[in-house]
Amino acid sequence: MPIGALVFDAYGTLFDVHSVVRRCEGLWPGKGAQLSQLWRAKQLEYTWQRSLMKRYAPFSTVTRAALAYACEALGLELTAERMEALMGEYLMLSPYPDVPDAIERCAGKKAILTNGSPDMIEPLVAHSGLKFDAVLSVDKLKTYKPAPEVYALALKKLKIPKERIGFVSSNCWDALGAKSFGFTVYWINRLGAPVERLGFTPDKTINSLLDLA
Amino acid sequence: MPIGALVFDAYGTLFDVHSVVRRCEGLWPGKGAQLSQLWRAKQLEYTWQRSLMKRYAPFSTVTRAALAYACEALGLELTAERMEALMGEYLMLSPYPDVPDAIERCAGKKAILTNGSPDMIEPLVAHSGLKFDAVLSVDKLKTYKPAPEVYALALKKLKIPKERIGFVSSNCWDALGAKSFGFTVYWINRLGAPVERLGFTPDKTINSLLDLA
Repeated sequence: MPIGALVFDAYGTLFDVHSVVRRCEGLWPGKGAQLSQLWRAKQLEYTWQRSLMKRYAPFSTVTRAALAYACEALGLELTAERMEALMGEYLMLSPYPDVPDAIERCAGKKAILTNGSPDMIEPLVAHSGLKFDAVLSVDKLKTYKPAPEVYALALKKLKIPKERIGFVSSNCWDALGAKSFGFTVYWINRLGAPVERLGFTPDKTINSLLDLA
Repeated sequence: MPIGALVFDAYGTLFDVHSVVRRCEGLWPGKGAQLSQLWRAKQLEYTWQRSLMKRYAPFSTVTRAALAYACEALGLELTAERMEALMGEYLMLSPYPDVPDAIERCAGKKAILTNGSPDMIEPLVAHSGLKFDAVLSVDKLKTYKPAPEVYALALKKLKIPKERIGFVSSNCWDALGAKSFGFTVYWINRLGAPVERLGFTPDKTINSLLDLA
C-alpha cells in the first residue's frame, strides 16, 4: 500500500539540536558535550518515568528539570539567566540541511508528532518557516512517546489506514514505538547507531530525509 | 505513624552488581566500566519503553537485549558463551556488607519488590541466604517500575497503610515512584548522586541500610 502521509518527529529529526550543545559549550567551556549529553538523557528518562508514574508535566518543565539535574551532577552553576538562554535556543533550532527540500518534494499530507509542549514547538515551527498540515503534541494526552495513544493521535488526525502513514524519526526507540503501533517506519540514522532491541525493526533505515521522496 | 514493614529494591540496593562489572572487564579488558554503564542504561530504558509501548518482556529478556545492544554499540564481540557467563553473574551477586545485619535488626515484615523476573530473582535470593517474608516481581503485572500498580503489589501483600510501609531503593527514580504512590521512602544514596527532579523528594536519604534500624 502506498504511503499517503508522513509524520515527523521534531527534535533531532527535523531540527538540529547542535546549537544547544554549542551554547552549553559557550557557557561552560570544555563541558558542553558532557552537559548536553546528560541533559538529553535525563530529559528522555523523565518523560518515560513521569508517564509511567502518571505524573505528566509538560516538556518545557521536564527539559528545565533535566538541565537543573545535569548541572548539579556535573558541578556547574546554573543561574536563571543561563537557564533562559539555553531554553531560548530550543525555540530557534535550525532544520537539518536536507529538511526543506525533503518536505517540499514529498507528496501527501505532512505532520509533526512531538513530545514538545505547545510553548516549545509552536514558536520553533513558526521560526523555521516550514509548513505542515498539522503539528501534534503529546501534551493533549498527558503522556509521552512511545505510548501507543500518542501515535494514535496522528492516525486520528490523518484519517488514513495505519500502514499508509510513514513515520519518520531519528530516535530509534520512537521509530519502534510507531512500528509497534502499526505505522510504516523510516528510521533516520544520522549517528550510525545500532538498532534498539525492542522486539521490532524499522521498515527502512535512511541516511537523509531526501531518501523519502 | 511508625513504619510497620520494609520493602526493598533488589539490584543496587540489596545486591551489589560490581561483580558483573568485574566480569565485563575480565572479558573485554579496558572496556568493563563503559560496557557495564551502557548495559545498565539500556536495561532501564528498555523497561520504561516496553512498559509504555505495552510490550512487556521479562527482565531476563530485556537484560540480554540490552547487553547485545551495548556490545554492538561499543564494537565488542558477544558470543553465546560470554552472554551466559554474564547473565550467570546476576544469579549470584553478593549482598552489600551492611545488608545482612540491617535485615536482621529491622523489626516487622521485610519484602523485596523488584523488576527482576522470577528466573533471575529467585535463584539470587536463595543463593544469598537472606530471608524475606515476600519476594514480589513486577513480572506478575507485565509492567515495570515506576508504574503505581507495581508499588500497589507490595501494599496488597503487606496489608498495612501505605504510609507505614518503608520503601528502600538506591535508584532515586524508583524511590520517587514509591513516594508518588504514597509510601514512606528511604533513598540509599550510595553514589552521592543529586536527587532526581521528578516532583517528589525522598522522606529520608541514608548512607547505609544500618540507618534503617
